[in-house]
Amino acid sequence: MKIAQIAPLYESCPPRLYGGTERVVSYLTEELVRLGHNVTLFASGDSQTAADLEPGYGSALRLDSHCQDPLVHHLIMLDCVRRRADEFDILHFHTDYLHFPLFADRWDKTLKTLHGRLDLPDLPAMMRHYAMMPLVSISDAQRAPMIWANWHGTVHHGLPPQLYRLGDGGGGYLAFLGRISPEKRPDRAIEIARRTGVALQIAAKVDRVDQGYFETRIQPMLDDPLIEFIGEIGEVEKNTFLGDAIALLFPIDWPEPFGMVLIEAMATGTPVIAYGRGSVPELIEEGLSGFIVDDLDSATAAVPRAAALDRGAIRQHFEARFSAERMARDYLTIYEGLPASQSRGLGSGVMTKRRAEAAD
Amino acid sequence: MKIAQIAPLYESCPPRLYGGTERVVSYLTEELVRLGHNVTLFASGDSQTAADLEPGYGSALRLDSHCQDPLVHHLIMLDCVRRRADEFDILHFHTDYLHFPLFADRWDKTLKTLHGRLDLPDLPAMMRHYAMMPLVSISDAQRAPMIWANWHGTVHHGLPPQLYRLGDGGGGYLAFLGRISPEKRPDRAIEIARRTGVALQIAAKVDRVDQGYFETRIQPMLDDPLIEFIGEIGEVEKNTFLGDAIALLFPIDWPEPFGMVLIEAMATGTPVIAYGRGSVPELIEEGLSGFIVDDLDSATAAVPRAAALDRGAIRQHFEARFSAERMARDYLTIYEGLPASQSRGLGSGVMTKRRAEAAD
Repeated sequence: MKIAQIAPLYESCPPRLYGGTERVVSYLTEELVRLGHNVTLFASGDSQTAADLEPGYGSALRLDSHCQDPLVHHLIMLDCVRRRADEFDILHFHTDYLHFPLFADRWDKTLKTLHGRLDLPDLPAMMRHYAMMPLVSISDAQRAPMIWANWHGTVHHGLPPQLYRLGDGGGGYLAFLGRISPEKRPDRAIEIARRTGVALQIAAKVDRVDQGYFETRIQPMLDDPLIEFIGEIGEVEKNTFLGDAIALLFPIDWPEPFGMVLIEAMATGTPVIAYGRGSVPELIEEGLSGFIVDDLDSATAAVPRAAALDRGAIRQHFEARFSAERMARDYLTIYEGLPASQSRGLGSGVMTKRRAEAAD
Repeated sequence: MKIAQIAPLYESCPPRLYGGTERVVSYLTEELVRLGHNVTLFASGDSQTAADLEPGYGSALRLDSHCQDPLVHHLIMLDCVRRRADEFDILHFHTDYLHFPLFADRWDKTLKTLHGRLDLPDLPAMMRHYAMMPLVSISDAQRAPMIWANWHGTVHHGLPPQLYRLGDGGGGYLAFLGRISPEKRPDRAIEIARRTGVALQIAAKVDRVDQGYFETRIQPMLDDPLIEFIGEIGEVEKNTFLGDAIALLFPIDWPEPFGMVLIEAMATGTPVIAYGRGSVPELIEEGLSGFIVDDLDSATAAVPRAAALDRGAIRQHFEARFSAERMARDYLTIYEGLPASQSRGLGSGVMTKRRAEAAD
């Protein structure tokens, strides 16, 4: 298929630093190319890809001190996509709802993955006004605030399997990875470590908005030989950090739409102990890749059980369910089901037949 | 003509409180109706107008605690405008550059008034990308950062003459009106008052972003019997506040694109002493409606000269140059010059002739 992937311009694809959406777009794009598709990636000009890169802006906007108004550059990029729209079988957007106005008359060849939380007060108005636009959720749970929207499927994120290697959990510690914030509940992670007497390593960034929470609630809890706060870590360190852990703690207190760190842990063979909010019940296979808990008691009880799980089996489970290839194939199935694909005979299976009919 | 006015949704038209752009859109809309045109106003649902009101949202967004993302509602409103675009001879937008993508293929019947400063780093990219979109500046000076853009004219703002009545300057004070901020230089106004020994009344709001400047730079200067800080005032109080003043001080330190307060003062017969930045030289008739100065010495020297000006002549000057009717007629001339008007025979003068030809 001829596929356009349209990424946000805040980070490059893949991001040099943090950047969830652009990372997923990058994994998907590279995998679609590997599967033999003709892909054009609309993204910041400093992106690295095997697809054709169409730069929407010179470099990632978040790191560009000259940019004050990212909207300008996203609108210009979308206009460029529109001018080239006829070249593509599928236009796959990852740029919020911004493309809706410009592509409402081409809805039948568009797909939009919603990468964030959906419980935002103004979003339903947009989704109702542009009710024809095809949407994909990143978990079934994510849909809860808008179950009535035009969902064409759920596609769980996937990772290139070679990105992470199996670890042996030999570090002997529990891991907390990501961001310090009230809804991620690092305080619960600390409490679980204390109750079990197992060490906890916290690798997390502290955003400016969470600085107060960190200082008043978390920092006082760090004065404990069991707990080590090691700050933000990069992609390379993540592999070792996760692979050496007995288990990842994910004691969230909000409906996480996906939670990339869950499948990153699985990719290193590390089991996950997670509170059952948001996407968690969809991503964790109870007793195979981890345990879903609902309070400190059940979380504490899960630690020795998690340590006893088969790490090789967890890695195999990851490869089967959360590889970039599985993600790309899921998207291809949805692409093929879109009206434009169906009418052009690009739908799976019927392709040859319809083309033959058209030739008559 | 059948005219659509498209206002921002932040404030109602007219605004209940502060709101520069929506005020101008309101004055223009009401005047076009008065001149016999068929006008539809796209604006917040709590707007008051003699035109047909097409609500873009229930109420002004700035005062609506449910709204977190104004972009959603502006995009939906623009889509509604687009669906009705064929009904109108002219689509006059006051919503930044947001309509460019959706109306690029209808550019010949659109007009965009730029209401703010143009020295923003991302704006030129947008103006170059949509170089066909017709623009209006609110002063010639405003164009400086983008003199190359697609300007179809400058239209100075205008006010309904009945909104303000001639005052006699009997309060015996100098006036500073608007916003406390470093670029408005209230410190200069205080210094001018001190040097001349004439009282100064400051009627100004302090935005949160300027609170620090107010507390560290201005508040210490207020401890002087000559200076009175009376805070923010409403439309009704403005008339008396300006009309009772000897002169308005406008000692700005930035390229003000227009400066509504200048013509409000003139409407009450009050002369203006202003630093010659931005729009000032276009708006003030030296020695008639005020004096243009360039330092504290010339500003101080201008105070007695301003007090001696003929207030009735200033009011007459205002009525001739800054009435809402003059503004509306200026816009009508530009509307008639747009390609869509020309080809439909709506151009001034040729209208009857072309219509007659079309009937043959």
